[in-house]
Formats: sequence, C-alpha cells, structure tokens
Amino acid sequence: MTNEELLAATAVNLWKLSLSRIDKLFLNASPKELEQEIAPGKNRLIYLWGHLTAVSLGPRLHPELDAAFVTAPDKTAVDPPSHDDVRRAWNEVNAKLAEGFAKMSPADWLKRHNAVSDEDFAKEPLRNRLAILLSRASHLAYHYGQAALISK
Amino acid sequence: MTNEELLAATAVNLWKLSLSRIDKLFLNASPKELEQEIAPGKNRLIYLWGHLTAVSLGPRLHPELDAAFVTAPDKTAVDPPSHDDVRRAWNEVNAKLAEGFAKMSPADWLKRHNAVSDEDFAKEPLRNRLAILLSRASHLAYHYGQAALISK
Repeated sequence: MTNEELLAATAVNLWKLSLSRIDKLFLNASPKELEQEIAPGKNRLIYLWGHLTAVSLGPRLHPELDAAFVTAPDKTAVDPPSHDDVRRAWNEVNAKLAEGFAKMSPADWLKRHNAVSDEDFAKEPLRNRLAILLSRASHLAYHYGQAALISK
Repeated sequence: MTNEELLAATAVNLWKLSLSRIDKLFLNASPKELEQEIAPGKNRLIYLWGHLTAVSLGPRLHPELDAAFVTAPDKTAVDPPSHDDVRRAWNEVNAKLAEGFAKMSPADWLKRHNAVSDEDFAKEPLRNRLAILLSRASHLAYHYGQAALISK
C-alpha cells in the first residue's frame, strides 16, 4: 500500500470500528433494553438507533425515519417505526455504505462533500468527504458513550 | 498541500475538533457542575475530566492522576486532586500534544505506535500512530456524549 492508501484506510477503519461496536450493542439489545432510557428522562436506546440510522452518510434511504427520530423528540411520535423496521433500515444503510466505501480511492476521499459549497471548499480543503466520514464516526462514538450507560 | 498532507491533516483535524468541544465544556463548567453526576449513580463530570487527562496520548505527564481517575472508581479516592489540579494538568497535556503534532509529517503518522509490537505491526500496518490518535479522538467523543447529558 502507498502512504496515501494507508492514511485513507486508517481513517476509514475508525468508521468501521466505531460502527462495529455500536452495531453489536444495538443488535444484542433485548426489546426491553431498546425501550429503556439511557438515563432517567433521556432518550431511549431505540431512539438513538433510529436517529443514527436516519442521519447516517450517503443518499437518504429512509427519510420516513425522520419524523420519529430526528424532527420529534423521543416518546412523542405517533405510530413510530417498530424495532424491526429500525433494524432493517440500519442494516441496509450500513451495507450500502460499506459497498460505496470499498470503491473509493484516497483522492476520492479528498473531494468536496455535497454539503459543502465550491466556494467554501476552495478556502477550506479539509472540509472533504473524509472529514464528513470521521465526523460521523465521532457521532457514533458520542451516542455509544450514552448507550453504554444503560444498566443490563 | 499534497494528498498525503491533506489526508493526514483531515485526520488530525478530527482530534482538534473533538478536543475543542469537550475543552469548552470542561472549562465552562461551574464547580457545582463538575461535581454533578452525568446520570444518577454514574461518574461525575470532574471524574471524566481527570480520566481523559490521565489517559491522553504521548508520554505520561501526570501519573499521579491515575489513582483518583483511572484505577479507582469515581467517588472512592482519598484526597483526590482538586478541580484546579485537573485543569492545569489538562491544559499542559494538550499544549504538549499540539506542539508534538505540529512537527509530524504524514509518514510519521504511519509509523508504529509504541503500544504495538514490531511483529504485530508487520502484519497490521493500520495499527499506526494515526489510528491511535483517531481512537483517542473517539474516546473524547464517547465521554463528550455522556457529559452532554448533564442538565444545566
């Protein structure tokens, strides 16, 4: 591997590791644990799961999750998606991401992300696709820290 | 900047951003907030702060923090360091890290970290210094998610 490839692969690996540990936590949680609040009065585990599925990277595959897990605070949505709906969407979103990432070269990671304007990108080349990936990996870790507070 | 430099700088930027947001939270917390538990029966904010200072990257500058913030669970240490002790150590550790990082080239980031054996590194070149940096950035985000649960 070239240095460029090693640097990009090391960064992509942070995403993979962050995803894999929270994936394990969600998939192993019982229905009762998914309904538990991470702390009294705070979000339930299923809300974090739906939230992370809805705001993941790439093309929006499940905009129907927004109402229950992004726009609305937890425990307020009428007729929210079921645990199984969230699990299916989560698995689908992450499979598509892994497929997409496998095709990207180091130079691809340095391209402008859609959320950044051409003008801003010219001034701040670090606002590239890799930065978005790392920031989402950090978002996974942020909520993993909260999910880890649930007592089994 | 070359692609190598951009890739390394993007990754180092995750560390900087992760540090800067939790730094703000700690430095703006009142003495009362620092004594507050992130959730009932869980660690206090000052414990997270001492913990993240003690287990930071680079040479151990403050091994005296281990007894109160790593080895012992929260609220059990006898005569623990004060808020000011933690603040001073935190600022010192992070200033040294920023100084060290500024001197590192992309190739430096790809070198073996001290915590990994030569043998393991030969098999797994992604276990480099950059991977450790990213994993520590993720550790900051993990505890930042918990610290954010404190109600002001």
